[in-house]
Amino acid sequence: MKESIKEKLSALRQEMQKQNIDAWYISGTDPHSSEYLPKRWETREFISGFTGSYGMVAVTSDKAALWTDTRYFLQAEEELKGTGIEMMKFRVPDAIPPEAWLAQNLPSGSKVGLDAQTVTIVQFRAFRKALKKKNITLVETPDLLGVVWEDRPLIPKDEAFELEVKYAGKTRTEKQQQLAEELKNRGTGLHVVSMLDELAWLYNLRGTDVPYNPVFTGFCVIGKSESTLFIDLDKMSADLKDKLNSEGVRVKEYTAFYGYLGKIKGQTIFVDPETLNYSAYSALAANNEIIEGTSVIALLKAQKNAVELKGFRNAMKKDGVALVEFLYWLKENIGKQNITDYSFGVKLAEFRAKQPGFKGESFNPIVGYKDRGAIVHLHVGANDGKPLAADGAILFDSGGQYIDGTTDITRTVRLGDVSEQFIRDYTIVLQGMIGLSRACFPYGTKGCHIDVLARQAMWNNGMNYGHGTGHGVGHFLNVHEGPFAIRQEYNENLMLPGNVTSNEPAFYREGLYGIRTENMMVCVEKEKTEYGRFLCFETLTLCPIDTTLIDKSLFTETEINWLNDYHKRVNTSLKPLLKEKYHEFLDELTKEI
Amino acid sequence: MKESIKEKLSALRQEMQKQNIDAWYISGTDPHSSEYLPKRWETREFISGFTGSYGMVAVTSDKAALWTDTRYFLQAEEELKGTGIEMMKFRVPDAIPPEAWLAQNLPSGSKVGLDAQTVTIVQFRAFRKALKKKNITLVETPDLLGVVWEDRPLIPKDEAFELEVKYAGKTRTEKQQQLAEELKNRGTGLHVVSMLDELAWLYNLRGTDVPYNPVFTGFCVIGKSESTLFIDLDKMSADLKDKLNSEGVRVKEYTAFYGYLGKIKGQTIFVDPETLNYSAYSALAANNEIIEGTSVIALLKAQKNAVELKGFRNAMKKDGVALVEFLYWLKENIGKQNITDYSFGVKLAEFRAKQPGFKGESFNPIVGYKDRGAIVHLHVGANDGKPLAADGAILFDSGGQYIDGTTDITRTVRLGDVSEQFIRDYTIVLQGMIGLSRACFPYGTKGCHIDVLARQAMWNNGMNYGHGTGHGVGHFLNVHEGPFAIRQEYNENLMLPGNVTSNEPAFYREGLYGIRTENMMVCVEKEKTEYGRFLCFETLTLCPIDTTLIDKSLFTETEINWLNDYHKRVNTSLKPLLKEKYHEFLDELTKEI
Repeated sequence: MKESIKEKLSALRQEMQKQNIDAWYISGTDPHSSEYLPKRWETREFISGFTGSYGMVAVTSDKAALWTDTRYFLQAEEELKGTGIEMMKFRVPDAIPPEAWLAQNLPSGSKVGLDAQTVTIVQFRAFRKALKKKNITLVETPDLLGVVWEDRPLIPKDEAFELEVKYAGKTRTEKQQQLAEELKNRGTGLHVVSMLDELAWLYNLRGTDVPYNPVFTGFCVIGKSESTLFIDLDKMSADLKDKLNSEGVRVKEYTAFYGYLGKIKGQTIFVDPETLNYSAYSALAANNEIIEGTSVIALLKAQKNAVELKGFRNAMKKDGVALVEFLYWLKENIGKQNITDYSFGVKLAEFRAKQPGFKGESFNPIVGYKDRGAIVHLHVGANDGKPLAADGAILFDSGGQYIDGTTDITRTVRLGDVSEQFIRDYTIVLQGMIGLSRACFPYGTKGCHIDVLARQAMWNNGMNYGHGTGHGVGHFLNVHEGPFAIRQEYNENLMLPGNVTSNEPAFYREGLYGIRTENMMVCVEKEKTEYGRFLCFETLTLCPIDTTLIDKSLFTETEINWLNDYHKRVNTSLKPLLKEKYHEFLDELTKEI
Repeated sequence: MKESIKEKLSALRQEMQKQNIDAWYISGTDPHSSEYLPKRWETREFISGFTGSYGMVAVTSDKAALWTDTRYFLQAEEELKGTGIEMMKFRVPDAIPPEAWLAQNLPSGSKVGLDAQTVTIVQFRAFRKALKKKNITLVETPDLLGVVWEDRPLIPKDEAFELEVKYAGKTRTEKQQQLAEELKNRGTGLHVVSMLDELAWLYNLRGTDVPYNPVFTGFCVIGKSESTLFIDLDKMSADLKDKLNSEGVRVKEYTAFYGYLGKIKGQTIFVDPETLNYSAYSALAANNEIIEGTSVIALLKAQKNAVELKGFRNAMKKDGVALVEFLYWLKENIGKQNITDYSFGVKLAEFRAKQPGFKGESFNPIVGYKDRGAIVHLHVGANDGKPLAADGAILFDSGGQYIDGTTDITRTVRLGDVSEQFIRDYTIVLQGMIGLSRACFPYGTKGCHIDVLARQAMWNNGMNYGHGTGHGVGHFLNVHEGPFAIRQEYNENLMLPGNVTSNEPAFYREGLYGIRTENMMVCVEKEKTEYGRFLCFETLTLCPIDTTLIDKSLFTETEINWLNDYHKRVNTSLKPLLKEKYHEFLDELTKEI
């Protein structure tokens, strides 16, 4: 394996020479800024062997480096050993980003190449600017991996299918009209879109091109009087194509996209520089006026409509039932059956799969037993499962795709004895989760303004976690979506009514354990006073939180009340859906503290 | 008066014609982005007759308009009557800013002129960009008021004086070395500075050119091997000039500044685009490489050294003594003597003036009795004082300049009966003040991350306030300084150890009352754990908070403890400095709740 990495790097370096460039940059993503990639775009793994879900690679004639974030530091160190690729820490204080590293390692006058399809407009500009300071040029080149990667997989031919309006809540025509109105407000008439979940939402279509995200590969150009969808035509049934045509959607071949853009002239076009790839921008910029802003579709999509929210609430009940059944199974079998952290995740998926409308997991579950809980985004393979015992605690982060909603939940549950320190840490993490759940804030508030509510108890105790607190969740769509985010980093997008977000403070003691408690919430209207319009959160997730791990003496009365009220609601919501054999168990899990 | 305004406008229009420009813009500030202006730069008042402290003016060949904010709408309407100048509302929703008004009122191809000394680099660029959309050019012209304004006052000749190192903590040579180090980290060797408080700090000099801010008018060019101070030479004694020279500071005539910049060539120069004026930038940009960023001096100045902090702590004791003496006087005389909100402020300044090292007030005090407390930036004149009675409550925001530190404090105190609603509101505001006082946060935190801690109790109750929560305070310098700020608006500058900030949540019920409780705090190191370096705040202000206005039942135990601990510290710190007649009164004001 390590040898094959070296060979690939060597082949890449030969191509770099042919193109007359001194370095090559691999963003690790696809032309759609996707989180989960079809095999074709797993370029980072291909070139480095690193299997984490986040990272960039830069290669010069004699050096190579891979950047990833705290989640993957241990894993990357391990996987990169012997490849000659250096691991660089990213998203930490004083991080040296790829562009700075390239500027340090290349002489003035050098050229850095990249496939401009795989970086956004913003990324390309920032990169170019950073390199320019040292008189290094960033050049758009063909995708060198096209040559180096011999049996490179194609985009899957999986069929795209329709999501009925009874689940979506709005027709694609209604969505197009709403979009056209918003575009008009921004002084433009046309929107060019490359994000796959935006296409899926806009057209009420779904697909299975990548794991976990029910999306299909495509692009679109849309406005008041135009709607052109670019998709591999093999992926669409004749009936669906006819239906789309009859509703005014022109369906064109995926590969025709850039050529089509090149023919647009004299228009005012709206693009999201954070998501549209630079090749698309290049094709448009010379002959059109470009207006940049947060994707209008992302904004519309993030404010779930009443039908979508009803679906979410229903999906949460199904998810809660699956989780309680699973926890019961776990209790009955822990210490008796052979269970590993890997089989734990598989079993949990089996319980979810029994629920109506289940379409698959919403991401690869993260199951961390004892010390492995401290590895933030650990993914255990079938062959390296760690056996579970009736001892310590286990953290599991998992979710389901249901036809009516997507779920994402983390619980940390007791399997046996835990330390006093664990109890204290668990309680403090839960205080953060409750703190954010209880937030009230005026219209205009952004995620970075309220993130502290999830961290305050931790900060008071010299504790912290190195990731965000809340991400948007799609409606039977991507488990991670924007445009808002609850985290320290500034993000100009507001928290708005209908936004569905995770709430997942956590704490990791390396070598000992990890703790995370995650609910999903929806932002709702609270009240309107003469001092403003106030919003708050309604918790969507319906699953017990392990009360046996709490040091109640650390809780305020408000926190105790919140938890008891939550458990009362979980009990009332799930009991009618659970077989009687689970009732006593549910009562025990949700009893007052 | 109104006629003279018309004559001035007419004279200005003649100059505009001579310069071949179609409109003239007056920013209303000076070449140093100052908050308080010397008479010479009161250009807005000269041309319009409007006497408010905030506003801009634009004049075309046939129209003229003045922009100001909510504070001054009534006053401006009144003062502008008959002048032909239209009042435009600014800082309100849907406001038409000057650049938009100019674009509306001028044909394509027009030229707008301004004295580029009076706008910052950022302001000039934004203005130019907005006008460019309508093909209108922004041109730098000479200051036309130089011709129109016949008896224009000069910059005051007040002497600049030295702040001894025993107060400043560092010599100017040490500061220059520290600055050179920071400049080197930014890839530059020279810093051009126009902010008056930055000059004052850098050279350990103070002045009296404007009210409240102990600064002198000047510019400087400084780096590792150069330190050139531009100042009216009449403002500096021969001894001081000799001393500066002997320490390597070249002193040049104030008016030589722009000419000097024009001769700098081939350098890499650091400027702060938010504060440096555009004329200075213009003089440099063509022949040098410009690196832009937050002023290095502002950053260094904001992290107070140990001597400065010792001074602050001492100044707080003096301020606390003056305030307790004043509160005693108030208690003895309210309802007996004739006291107005105006004379209240005068009397308070008299108590401060008795303290050693007092150098004046740090700003024009804001004293709001009953309903006037809800007018956020009220300044009562001698002739419109409102009589105080032994009823309701009074809000007062005031501060002193002492040789060893600057103070800024707001208290809301009971004069007699208040409503239940007042008690509740007061308690909630205080919860916010305590919430921020108790904040712990990791290194890397910005003001917008922790602002919510001062607002959370309010937001939970549908309440809010429309201004920031915390601003930096200078050391025997400006009571408002940057670069950090605790407010909702994003500001990239971190909260850093040594930063001195106000903490002033507030609440205003229009027509009823205003409530604000403000302490000053210093950011300090708290602990270093494996999860980061944690900071917190130490409260500097030493003055009782009116406990008779608190509804204790709303407080958590933590809040009660914080307040009791604070009052214990106030008592212990001030009692030894107060005459015995005040001791019982102090005990009463600081007793446990």
